[in-house]
Order: sequence, then structure tokens, then C-alpha cells
Amino acid sequence: MAPTALSGTVNGTTFHKSRAPEPATEETGESIRLAARSAIFTGQTSGSAPTYVQANLIAMPARYAPDFRLLCQRNPVPCPLLAESEQVGGWDALKSHIPGVAGKQIADNVDLRHDFPRYMVYENGILTKSQCLSAETEWTGEHVGFLIGCSFSFESALAAAGLVPAHMAHRRNVPMYRTSLPLCPAGVFRNSSYVVSMRLYQPQDIERIRDITRPYVATHGEPIDWGWDAVARLGIKDITRPEFGDSPVRSDGSPLSVEASTETGDVVPVFWGCGVTPQEAVRQAALEGTVLGHAPGHMIVLDLRDWDILPERLS
Amino acid sequence: MAPTALSGTVNGTTFHKSRAPEPATEETGESIRLAARSAIFTGQTSGSAPTYVQANLIAMPARYAPDFRLLCQRNPVPCPLLAESEQVGGWDALKSHIPGVAGKQIADNVDLRHDFPRYMVYENGILTKSQCLSAETEWTGEHVGFLIGCSFSFESALAAAGLVPAHMAHRRNVPMYRTSLPLCPAGVFRNSSYVVSMRLYQPQDIERIRDITRPYVATHGEPIDWGWDAVARLGIKDITRPEFGDSPVRSDGSPLSVEASTETGDVVPVFWGCGVTPQEAVRQAALEGTVLGHAPGHMIVLDLRDWDILPERLS
Repeated sequence: MAPTALSGTVNGTTFHKSRAPEPATEETGESIRLAARSAIFTGQTSGSAPTYVQANLIAMPARYAPDFRLLCQRNPVPCPLLAESEQVGGWDALKSHIPGVAGKQIADNVDLRHDFPRYMVYENGILTKSQCLSAETEWTGEHVGFLIGCSFSFESALAAAGLVPAHMAHRRNVPMYRTSLPLCPAGVFRNSSYVVSMRLYQPQDIERIRDITRPYVATHGEPIDWGWDAVARLGIKDITRPEFGDSPVRSDGSPLSVEASTETGDVVPVFWGCGVTPQEAVRQAALEGTVLGHAPGHMIVLDLRDWDILPERLS
Repeated sequence: MAPTALSGTVNGTTFHKSRAPEPATEETGESIRLAARSAIFTGQTSGSAPTYVQANLIAMPARYAPDFRLLCQRNPVPCPLLAESEQVGGWDALKSHIPGVAGKQIADNVDLRHDFPRYMVYENGILTKSQCLSAETEWTGEHVGFLIGCSFSFESALAAAGLVPAHMAHRRNVPMYRTSLPLCPAGVFRNSSYVVSMRLYQPQDIERIRDITRPYVATHGEPIDWGWDAVARLGIKDITRPEFGDSPVRSDGSPLSVEASTETGDVVPVFWGCGVTPQEAVRQAALEGTVLGHAPGHMIVLDLRDWDILPERLS
């Protein structure tokens, strides 16, 4: 994507494209998409094509689309809506939900049925297929695909500040957890709750981490909770056994020991809203018909760059 | 306000001004504001000037304004931001947060220091004055006033459908409760939780109530929870003793008996996000300096009409 002068708003916050793209790396959003499309790349995408925005998928029958847009509007932290299929049934063009940014700027050469490395399939709210390489068989003329912002977007910023997430350093998937924190219901989407991603950090770094991730309003923004007390507050059953992604490791790659860390207080868990939340909402709403999601951690990588959606400090 | 052709978006949802104003009633937004300004009207405003949009107030030192805007952006259900002071220290002109609607259309002849019937004053997060008739003494050149949507806006719609809220029928203030449901933190605003308003309804009417209030996205929208189980889920201590407003009554005006109603199941509580939430956030954040709020239930009544902010069905 060539540098262009862009400005607009994300969730009501004005942003300006204020940085020129970095020198090209080998990986771009399009190169990762093409590799996923041809099933050459089938892995998780944390750290892939740094500074290219990544996104979560949820695709559902069009009759649920109005309620789903409202769910995102009412719950923008776990469900920041970036784009959707340009038309019902469409998979090769996007309609942007980022004012001032066109669908083609989000991703031009795109195929929502293939460009995620792996997919999940739900039938009547029940997971029936997992880790599929394509969703071509299931995608019908009635499906609308939605792209939701992903916290991988701010990991580059954390890394640049010397706060490399441990899972990223060790090329693992981020741990993700079901919680008891309810979403605001919207139409058919009720009895839903947040999914969160977790990164371990030293307590003295929390405020800096909040400051660094705060401006990423289109990709979950600052943490929703942190500290060992937050585990119980969020209703997380066992932090060493996430429902999605890989188990948490410390910065030296060793497994997290809750007993040791709560005793020494050397690291604490920090939780962010997670774009797997819509898949949980679909499951909890037991939507009739076929719903498609990405496999957690296996994102689409867009043409959009981090700075295209980074608002200036709110003022 | 003369009928004009308006369209725009509220929290990302497109709306069109699709209805002409009703025939003028005796009360208008301006007439209520002028009566409050001169301290002739000092009561609560549920049912005042029907179809004129009402709003909550929170006014704070300008240094907290960016974090507060972000708090609203991350928590649009309890904190739907409609407008703010046109400039720091300003009280007689509004900057709109409703795209396509100008500040002057929200309220033209306005004085944020006097046009609420009653005010609350917080010093360093502690309530120091309550039910004041004016905030003129406390309002400084450093204050920014924010107007937050109010659930009174959809009460006309509920009444028109034969679902008159009992407090409205009996000219009481709506009951409002502190909850344990956390807000997504934003900068200095952390450890905050929702305040909710409550209306009693028959269980068989819940889905209709959800449908009627759903489109009011700028004024809290559909309920966040309902049913007797919701009382414990929200951490409400005693539903017969709200923290704000009047105690709940049944449609015949008799006091709510939890024992009788849980046994017969004739009525259940229905909870909506409430614009008193920002005052709780200020209290919980222990903001330094002077913060002003409206007295719960004592709103400013705007020039804006309900249909100016009612989006068409999301599509």
C-alpha cells in the first residue's frame, strides 16, 4: 500500500496518517494472505509481517448481521469492527467501518474463504470442524464476513518499547481465556461473555503498558484488567490452561507457575479484550445455520498498517 | 427547533430524521431549561417535555477530558457521549458528538451551570454538596462539561406501546443502583463500575421491551440484563433500596415486595445502563479538583427530539 494522506475517525476518534511506511520487509500483508490462500502458510500469525494490521473473522448468515453490528457497537473493546463483506455472500471485497479508509485500502487482493491460515466451523452454535485450511465449502451466498481488530497490532509497539510479549519471543500463540464478564446483549446475542488475551508483565511496567496500548482503539486498546486478583474477577478457571492458544510462558520460555509468581509477585497477568469473543457469542447464542470463524491466533493480515488506525492522543 | 433534513451517524450507526415533530406541547426543552435556570423548576424530569431528548451532566477539569472521552468510547452503553462544552471553561455553547447534528441543534439557548434542576458537587472524588440549584460558584475556566444520553428518551416509546414505566405513571424518579459490573478502564478512570436504572415489567413483555428500546443507541439502547437472577449477577445489594432516585413501585403504585414477586413471578426487574455511571467513575477514580454532575433524575432537557437520534433499523 503506497503512502497516502489519510485522516478519519475510528470509533469517533480522529486520526491522521502521520508516519510513512517503514522500509519494506520480506513479509507483507498480501504475501501472508497469498501464502495462506495456497495453504503454504498454515501457522499462527503473531509476529507475522510486523506493522501490518491483523484481523479476526466471523462470518454468519445475513439475517443475523444487523444484530451483530449492534453487538460490536455496544461492545467496542472486545469487538472493534473494522470491515465486512462488501455485499451479502461476498468474500473478495470489503466495506470499511473505518471512516476515511476505503475497503480496498484495508485489503485489496483478498479472499475471506482462504486468506486465514486456519478456520473454525460452527453448525447451530456447535463447533463441528476445527483448524480447517479453507472455508470455501461452507461459505454460501447468504454469508456476511466481519473483520474484527486484533491485539497483535499493538505487540509491535510493545516490542519497540522493550516489552516484548513472551509468547512472541518464543514464537508461540498468545493464551486466550473464556471469562464470566458479560457483553452488553444485542438482539439474538445474549448471555455472551468476553474472551480475553493475556500477557505476563512485571507489576512496575503496567502503567507504561496501559499508555502504549491505549491509542490502539481499533484493536482492543488498553488492558481491561490486570494483576492476580483479576483472574478471579474475570472468572478464569485455570490460568495455566487457556481455552485457546498456547499455555503461558515466562520471558525465559519456562512455563508459568502460579504458586511461584503469586509468592514473589515478579510477574502478573495483564488482560485485553480478544477478537475470539464473537465466536463465543455465536456459540452462546446457538445461532441456527453455519457460522465461520478464524482459528484463534490464525489471523488475516491486511494491507492496512498500524499507523493507519492509530489515533493521535485524544484531545 | 424547526424540522430540518438531517442525517448522520450515532456511534457508527446511520440515522435519518424521518419524522416531523409532533404538534407543540406546552413544555419544550427550552421552556424546561429556562424554568430550571431561574429555579422555578427544581424537580426530577422523567416525563417532562415528552419527546425532547434529556441528558446527564459531568463537568471536570480539562486535564481529565481526553481520558473521559476514551472512557465513553470504550463504554458506550452506560456512557453515550452526546456533546461537550464548545471550549474549555465554556457553558453556553455545545460541541456535538453526534455526526450530522450541530451543537446549536442540540441546545441553542443553554447554560450548563443552571439548566439542570439540581446539581451534585465532588471535591477530590468526595461528594461535598448535593441537590444544589446551580453550579455557577463551582464552574471555573478550566471546566469541560459533557452531556451523556439518558434513558428517559425511550420512556415515551415504551409508554406509546402501552408499557408505561411505573415510576413515570406515579411521577416518581426512576430507581438507580450501583453494580459490580466493571467498566473498561480508560486512563485515570479505573476500578469503575456500571450504574443501572431499573423498570419492573411482566416477563412476557421482555422481548418487546428489548425491541422497542434497541434503536435508542445514543440513550443506552436495549437492557443490559433482566430477571430476578440479574440482581445477584449485577451485585445489587437490596433492590428495594436504590442508591439513587426513588424506591421502586409496582404499576398500582404499591411498593415492590421481592418475596411476593419472586414467588409469583408476576414482575421482574429490567436493567439499563445509566448516565449516573460517569459520576461513579469520578468518585472511584478520586479525581483531584472539583467535578460537577446533575442530581440523579434531574436532567437537562435539550432542543433535540427523540427522532433526531433514533437510527433506522441497522441494516
